[in-house]
Amino acid sequence: MHSFKELTIEFSRRFNTPHFPKYPESLYAANDYFLGLGGKRIRPVMCLMGNELFNDIHEDAWQVATAIELFHNFTLIHDDIMDAAPRRRGFETVHQKYGASTALLAGDVMLVVAYEYLNKISSSHLKPIINLFSKTAREVCEGQQLDMDFEKLSTVSPGEYLKMIELKTSVLLAASLKMGAIIGGAGDGNSDHLYEFGKNLGIAFQIQDDYLDAFGDPEKFGKTAGGDIRQNKKTFLLIHALRTATGSQQQELHALLNSDSNDKVERVLKIFRDCNVDEWARQLKQQYFDKALFHIEEIAVLSSRKKPLLEIAEFLIQRDY
Amino acid sequence: MHSFKELTIEFSRRFNTPHFPKYPESLYAANDYFLGLGGKRIRPVMCLMGNELFNDIHEDAWQVATAIELFHNFTLIHDDIMDAAPRRRGFETVHQKYGASTALLAGDVMLVVAYEYLNKISSSHLKPIINLFSKTAREVCEGQQLDMDFEKLSTVSPGEYLKMIELKTSVLLAASLKMGAIIGGAGDGNSDHLYEFGKNLGIAFQIQDDYLDAFGDPEKFGKTAGGDIRQNKKTFLLIHALRTATGSQQQELHALLNSDSNDKVERVLKIFRDCNVDEWARQLKQQYFDKALFHIEEIAVLSSRKKPLLEIAEFLIQRDY
Repeated sequence: MHSFKELTIEFSRRFNTPHFPKYPESLYAANDYFLGLGGKRIRPVMCLMGNELFNDIHEDAWQVATAIELFHNFTLIHDDIMDAAPRRRGFETVHQKYGASTALLAGDVMLVVAYEYLNKISSSHLKPIINLFSKTAREVCEGQQLDMDFEKLSTVSPGEYLKMIELKTSVLLAASLKMGAIIGGAGDGNSDHLYEFGKNLGIAFQIQDDYLDAFGDPEKFGKTAGGDIRQNKKTFLLIHALRTATGSQQQELHALLNSDSNDKVERVLKIFRDCNVDEWARQLKQQYFDKALFHIEEIAVLSSRKKPLLEIAEFLIQRDY
Repeated sequence: MHSFKELTIEFSRRFNTPHFPKYPESLYAANDYFLGLGGKRIRPVMCLMGNELFNDIHEDAWQVATAIELFHNFTLIHDDIMDAAPRRRGFETVHQKYGASTALLAGDVMLVVAYEYLNKISSSHLKPIINLFSKTAREVCEGQQLDMDFEKLSTVSPGEYLKMIELKTSVLLAASLKMGAIIGGAGDGNSDHLYEFGKNLGIAFQIQDDYLDAFGDPEKFGKTAGGDIRQNKKTFLLIHALRTATGSQQQELHALLNSDSNDKVERVLKIFRDCNVDEWARQLKQQYFDKALFHIEEIAVLSSRKKPLLEIAEFLIQRDY
């Protein structure tokens, strides 16, 4: 068994190799540039851990992990175009550096190359892997579309927001684990529980992310606090506040959403606290985390095999704040 | 055996069915809209003909044909974004109607769904089909990038232009035929010859397309003549003219490329004719067409089976002008 950290190091070492042809350089330099910016490689390592929960890591799992990481980077390149984001991980985004058209093509070709990696695995697992990968890829696109739709709406229900988060973020985490499980030879019951573990963990992580953006310590969190509030992003927190605030709080919140004043973040946070949004978010996160734990408990393997996954789940969720 | 026309009718009938989920409607309406605009469906029918050259059409060929047509439409949606084209087939382009972000995602998801159709075929052919499909998809992206690169260059060699055309246009025609051949049970030799037939036919077709845009009868051709000339597109004709024109013709040609005068098309065409570009293009087209015919002759099946493919090749190339 390997820890998350050990697998991250080994995956990063293997992933650090050319994935694209040399020609035309005008296209592939953009892909090489973006992959060179790094990343936490959480999803591919989840695939490896999903495999190792049931069996020694099979060579196929490395191929699928590579495909997953390429897919994830494809979504980032295209999302950055849609968001007109100038920077990612502290560096210029692909469209900023190479133009929108090349960024669009660089993303397209990265998705195609992801499928080329999938197609390297043994025939026995090819169909179920491509099935799950494609379904997930489709869902991630759907989640991104919902996210853009919600930006234009004045209200979004918690259920709608949850569905969006599930599609945009959680299903890829869940599917990464399950693809690993399939390669590890897991049966349907076990691999479905692992999928649900990943999905609920992903939702808990997103609630935490929303929470930390508002209430986190900027020094520990590494981002300026209140970014979501400044951009009027419909996070779990804002959606809940808009539903629980009193009449006068509602009025003030709507006025703040339409303003750009310097104390906007501070005043929105005060309303959040007055509505107990912080406590509510901590509880909601815990609920999803508990669901995740329930599903991993249901998996019929020796509990010692679950240790690395439980460790990384605790690490991702129990961040210091 | 079926004619191109018969297969087109049957493919169009089968293709005219929902290919996407209903939700989120904001995403999938864009895909349904674009597919509803129609198209000649040449590539999927080539796949069916490639199958029928060797064997009765297998159910798998319809799945692959569907994947090919979805892939082709994905490239059109994304190309239209890159070209900022307002109209396609007489209707609004997807980005014009639904916005660039939705068009980008609609294209992405269409590519994913293309792979979902591929993944429906029997396991025995899955790997070689996904291999060829993915390689071709990558090449089409490379061709589009080269096309954009060339727009910014002052000169492009005939060899470079040929490579671009091959990637952007011909390989998909070639691969469509070959994927059909694989499903029809053809051996490597036969299916490679069929690929070369399609590739050379595609190049001949592109030379003809360039020719007709300049010299074609607008009434028969259905486009305004001289569109490429007005846009300074580096077609086979312009590239050849720039290399064979005399000193004074060169000077005039470069001046015209930098001008927007009303008689631009007329004057460029005069230089083309003075340089015998029209005759040269007709000969070049014939050379590639002959190469295509050579390769289809080399395929070891009864010549009666080749009849529908030869008919459509003649039809595509020997257009009336």
